[in-house]
Amino acid sequence: MKQFFYFYSNLNSCMPKVEVCFTPQAFPLFANEEANVVVIDVLRATSAICTAFYNGVSKMIPVATVEEAREYQRNGFMAAAERNGEIVEGFELGNSPFGYMNNKVKGKTIALTTTNGTQAIEAAKNARKVIIGSFLNQDVVADYLIAQQRNVILLCAGWKNKFNLEDTLFAGYIVEKLMASAYETDCDSALAASTLYNIAQHDLYGFLANSSHRNRLKKLDLERDIRYCLTPNQTPVIPVLEGKHLVKMNVNIQVVGK
Amino acid sequence: MKQFFYFYSNLNSCMPKVEVCFTPQAFPLFANEEANVVVIDVLRATSAICTAFYNGVSKMIPVATVEEAREYQRNGFMAAAERNGEIVEGFELGNSPFGYMNNKVKGKTIALTTTNGTQAIEAAKNARKVIIGSFLNQDVVADYLIAQQRNVILLCAGWKNKFNLEDTLFAGYIVEKLMASAYETDCDSALAASTLYNIAQHDLYGFLANSSHRNRLKKLDLERDIRYCLTPNQTPVIPVLEGKHLVKMNVNIQVVGK
Repeated sequence: MKQFFYFYSNLNSCMPKVEVCFTPQAFPLFANEEANVVVIDVLRATSAICTAFYNGVSKMIPVATVEEAREYQRNGFMAAAERNGEIVEGFELGNSPFGYMNNKVKGKTIALTTTNGTQAIEAAKNARKVIIGSFLNQDVVADYLIAQQRNVILLCAGWKNKFNLEDTLFAGYIVEKLMASAYETDCDSALAASTLYNIAQHDLYGFLANSSHRNRLKKLDLERDIRYCLTPNQTPVIPVLEGKHLVKMNVNIQVVGK
Repeated sequence: MKQFFYFYSNLNSCMPKVEVCFTPQAFPLFANEEANVVVIDVLRATSAICTAFYNGVSKMIPVATVEEAREYQRNGFMAAAERNGEIVEGFELGNSPFGYMNNKVKGKTIALTTTNGTQAIEAAKNARKVIIGSFLNQDVVADYLIAQQRNVILLCAGWKNKFNLEDTLFAGYIVEKLMASAYETDCDSALAASTLYNIAQHDLYGFLANSSHRNRLKKLDLERDIRYCLTPNQTPVIPVLEGKHLVKMNVNIQVVGK
């Protein structure tokens, strides 16, 4: 019996793990250079990045400060800058996905700084792979992670290092998919995220009605952006960090669920 | 119309706010010296503290390190020390509530160090009031906060600065009670906590079956402790920090729900 139990625990410990980290501040407690990290900033940085690559952007350069983005702009690059939900003065692009749905961005390299998303990418940069997740590419991300069979950390960008609901719901979706495949978890935030996703899944928009960031964006008249960012599988691409640049991952993607 | 809106926002902003902070690490992002802070470490530090005061302990001295607790012990105090769920060698008490259910503790001053709880008390020490919450004193805590009508921060001790479920469920209970009275929130973690509490409320024990800390304690054969710590209103007292000591708050408490 003991031997069986030993075998069973061994089998268990061979399963890859999924964890959820609610804020970039907490990431050092999770960091594991062997894990794949998914950076999540649903409203709206990672949704915008997915949309940009789906519309043919060639590279994106995440930078921490508006000043760095301006420097790229002065050197002839396209540049995008968002702070507190609004495009920073002097920039053509912010983090509205709709800003990236045109031919002007095709083939371009774009420098990008946002309130939360780019900081989360910076926090995760030493991971085995840093990929960009949002509802817009949810199933290609989940399928990729499942095929990899490696430990996964879902890193929510949150809002200025506080927990937020929309990133947590997306993390919950990925936890569900991974746990339904051969993943396990011993992480309470993963259990919380999947429980919340289960409740919210049939009406993400309604569930977020009282959330802090939806209210922040509501004041800025961005309801259309929010609805789009909560729509599954609109942009079946996987942006991935290579050195200091985001590029489109070169994988054979089968569009699922669209 | 604009004037009405202004009036309305003003009215709203007069209501006290409740926020939930999931870990001591994140507390500086919430800290507000005008707020009342409830420190929560359901399994088991704050449950043990409530039990201790209910059984006549006179004072508790939360200390950060085992060495400090030993120093108090050498000076003739009773001392309690827990690390990773177990009593530290050389101590009579840890953070099992059952350790405090006897006459030996009556009238005593006890130095206490635990893995997470005492660190959370330390993080909160500059708040207007730091009170100790657990399911064991849930309604006297909620009623006290409602009577105070001041901003509230519910500080979960978590596990080594990671989010945990049991503290979140208790925070969710308090959020529910406060929001049903004249409190408001713009805090996503408060919304998440109350949603999770709503799902779990009829079977807290079952809901926590897969949680990391319940599994940690299960290995240590502490199921009886867990069941007790999840039982409402067993110890209607409010421990409060006064200087460096915890004492029993001198309030006229009506036992609710027992």
